Amino acid sequence: FCCLRMFLHEITFFHVNDGSSLQSLQIVADPHLGSRDITFGSAVEVWGKLVPSPHQKQNVELQANKITLVGSCNPVSFPFKIKDRHSLEYLRQFPHLRCKTNVFSSLLRLRSEATAAINSFFKNNGFIHIHTPIITSNDCEGGGELFQVEPASRKEDKNQDNPHFFNVPSFLTVSGQLHLEVMAGAFTQVYTFGPTFRAENSQTRRHLAEFYMVEAELAFTESLEDIMKVMENLFKSATSHILSECPEDVELFHKYLAPEQKVCSWFNILNHVNLIFRLSYTEAIDILQDSTKTFTFKPQWGCDLQTEHEKYLVQHCGNIPVFVINYPYDIKPFYARDNQDGPQHTVSAVDLLVPGIGELCGGSLREERLDLLQSRLKQHGFKDSYQWYEELRQFGSVPHGGFGMGFERYLQCVLGVENIKDVIPFPRFSHSCLL
Amino acid sequence: FCCLRMFLHEITFFHVNDGSSLQSLQIVADPHLGSRDITFGSAVEVWGKLVPSPHQKQNVELQANKITLVGSCNPVSFPFKIKDRHSLEYLRQFPHLRCKTNVFSSLLRLRSEATAAINSFFKNNGFIHIHTPIITSNDCEGGGELFQVEPASRKEDKNQDNPHFFNVPSFLTVSGQLHLEVMAGAFTQVYTFGPTFRAENSQTRRHLAEFYMVEAELAFTESLEDIMKVMENLFKSATSHILSECPEDVELFHKYLAPEQKVCSWFNILNHVNLIFRLSYTEAIDILQDSTKTFTFKPQWGCDLQTEHEKYLVQHCGNIPVFVINYPYDIKPFYARDNQDGPQHTVSAVDLLVPGIGELCGGSLREERLDLLQSRLKQHGFKDSYQWYEELRQFGSVPHGGFGMGFERYLQCVLGVENIKDVIPFPRFSHSCLL
Repeated sequence: FCCLRMFLHEITFFHVNDGSSLQSLQIVADPHLGSRDITFGSAVEVWGKLVPSPHQKQNVELQANKITLVGSCNPVSFPFKIKDRHSLEYLRQFPHLRCKTNVFSSLLRLRSEATAAINSFFKNNGFIHIHTPIITSNDCEGGGELFQVEPASRKEDKNQDNPHFFNVPSFLTVSGQLHLEVMAGAFTQVYTFGPTFRAENSQTRRHLAEFYMVEAELAFTESLEDIMKVMENLFKSATSHILSECPEDVELFHKYLAPEQKVCSWFNILNHVNLIFRLSYTEAIDILQDSTKTFTFKPQWGCDLQTEHEKYLVQHCGNIPVFVINYPYDIKPFYARDNQDGPQHTVSAVDLLVPGIGELCGGSLREERLDLLQSRLKQHGFKDSYQWYEELRQFGSVPHGGFGMGFERYLQCVLGVENIKDVIPFPRFSHSCLL
Repeated sequence: FCCLRMFLHEITFFHVNDGSSLQSLQIVADPHLGSRDITFGSAVEVWGKLVPSPHQKQNVELQANKITLVGSCNPVSFPFKIKDRHSLEYLRQFPHLRCKTNVFSSLLRLRSEATAAINSFFKNNGFIHIHTPIITSNDCEGGGELFQVEPASRKEDKNQDNPHFFNVPSFLTVSGQLHLEVMAGAFTQVYTFGPTFRAENSQTRRHLAEFYMVEAELAFTESLEDIMKVMENLFKSATSHILSECPEDVELFHKYLAPEQKVCSWFNILNHVNLIFRLSYTEAIDILQDSTKTFTFKPQWGCDLQTEHEKYLVQHCGNIPVFVINYPYDIKPFYARDNQDGPQHTVSAVDLLVPGIGELCGGSLREERLDLLQSRLKQHGFKDSYQWYEELRQFGSVPHGGFGMGFERYLQCVLGVENIKDVIPFPRFSHSCLL
């Protein structure tokens, strides 16, 4: 005999679900046990006997002795209806309720499993987990789209000796990389997995104002291959973990939401030793220029790859992930390591492009040579604020590098989810911060 | 034969360390192999043969064939000296270098292990990991010390139809609780482990502007005991994990930094079945009033416990952790569940007080009864903004509750670290946001 306390997802046969799996438990009950107040969305407590089920689709079912209504649910005002399949756009209006639907509870279980898989991957490979700061006085990428942070009450109080809470302007982090570089100088292999922020006004299906990044940094690197190996292994390890641990949840996405995205194709990719195709940036530009396709942005050496270019390259290589390496010196941030390769002049940077998404990861070797770094910082005009960063190159500097992977894009890619707003519990983007 | 690439921590005998443990590897080398440029803090590459060591304190040592200097370190400008034991205050000035010291690398290894232990605890107990939002339009506690968030570039651009990026004022989260309550309604057991923020001006050794919280929420609770059991098991599980996985790192803290904090006392606590003493708030006030100690704040029923009170209670109970339950209705937030206990009028809230720190965790049952919640929200004056929160009580509401644990305070407590700034990689507090 057992006592089950769950959320009622269907009233026919009393299907109850506690959120631990997609599959509900079927309750078999005498008609006098069920109350008319028990409707779709109610919370119930059920006492009964767990018995083998005669149905093929389930191992067990519960023969109920007692059913109690814990929390009722008005079927008129409840926005989800038992017989309807609601669109993801519709569900997005109810961030406080959509986790009660099959599709979003599957998503959040997968997200939780993927998070655990990523943490396990790094732990098993000897990486130390670092909580890089969220509030920072640095602007890692040199880009402008930062959120600034000040106390809410500060505005009213103008009579202060310093206009800033932290004495300096402070921002929400766009990347933990520079702080991870600090740590790679002590622990050799480090990673972080936390929120990052962009104050972008764009409303695309690939961008959020608040999103999660997995970032890793390795000391004593010999080439970009060291970084690419970790990127590849991380991708494989996390993906094979969720495919094996949550097959039903993955199937829901592949079958109903992204029918063209076949589970077996992922298995094929994972089982190949050389998972990922490799192209130099220069080769990539050649491929794009040789293509008969008309691009909105004309592909040209020295310009950054656009999403349309990235997607074409993935398609061109057989719809598998592609590494593009050695980007032009002038389009990458100050910390990317100079390849010193003559007139072409590239840096050791790499992007991982994936089917359906385009850029999933970006990484580079970092300039560990003090003189080259200093001239680069000077060129970018922020020499003084990076004194500490230069000092890392003065006290036991080593060749190092790392990468970042957008966690939501990873979930979009593996599950085939169109819109990034549907792979995060509470999406934040311009004009929207619900709850 | 092996190739070792590490950071040089001591030049006598060439002690090298890759950050994986407190213990360094001893390099035995012919005098002609070492260069005079190899100084304390340098990064080196060593080729040699790993052999059993004749010394008691180490299993192996490396007989070097070749030593290469990878990155030099100027001993004059390097702020750490080989023979000095620098104070934690001194190290705090060098957030980009202090991870290279023994004490701070031990701390960060322990922090990484504790993080993994906490994640494992929840995963093993069937909790789903939720990334609760960092930017939120809610103010969970109703307290005023919030950081507000707007794009850095927004200030200059006044000609906008809406003054806010998200259309509404948005803040850095002070707690993921309300968002976890959403999720507990679908997954029964959920947790989050992420950064939280307070724009407090206080400069105490227990407060930071950015700190980490572990928060859990459980549905179908029967009493506060359900919450306290998870708190207790989390504390025990994480602590016994780091004591067994990182004994040397823990010993460093207990032996040199907090000699009064004995490892064995933690083992004693962990081995007791009834780890934690239980007091009601009313009993706690009686104990404080009966005490001969003079408090700065006079203990009085209806007033919140101060740190001095919390520390006295811990001492009074034999210097072990203490649960204080059932606080006055009027001093707890709107979501705490009403005990409806007559003239006394308390709520089902609990604080866990620990030696050396005072409050480590705070939790409560949440008011799941719509009418009681509504009158409480009205009383606090923010009825409208919590419509979604009320709706959780309309669609399958269940008794539930949860708690939050300050992760830095946990580390302070277990390791005996005086100042919270020394248990986080990059501390943020008023007037300081280095790097």
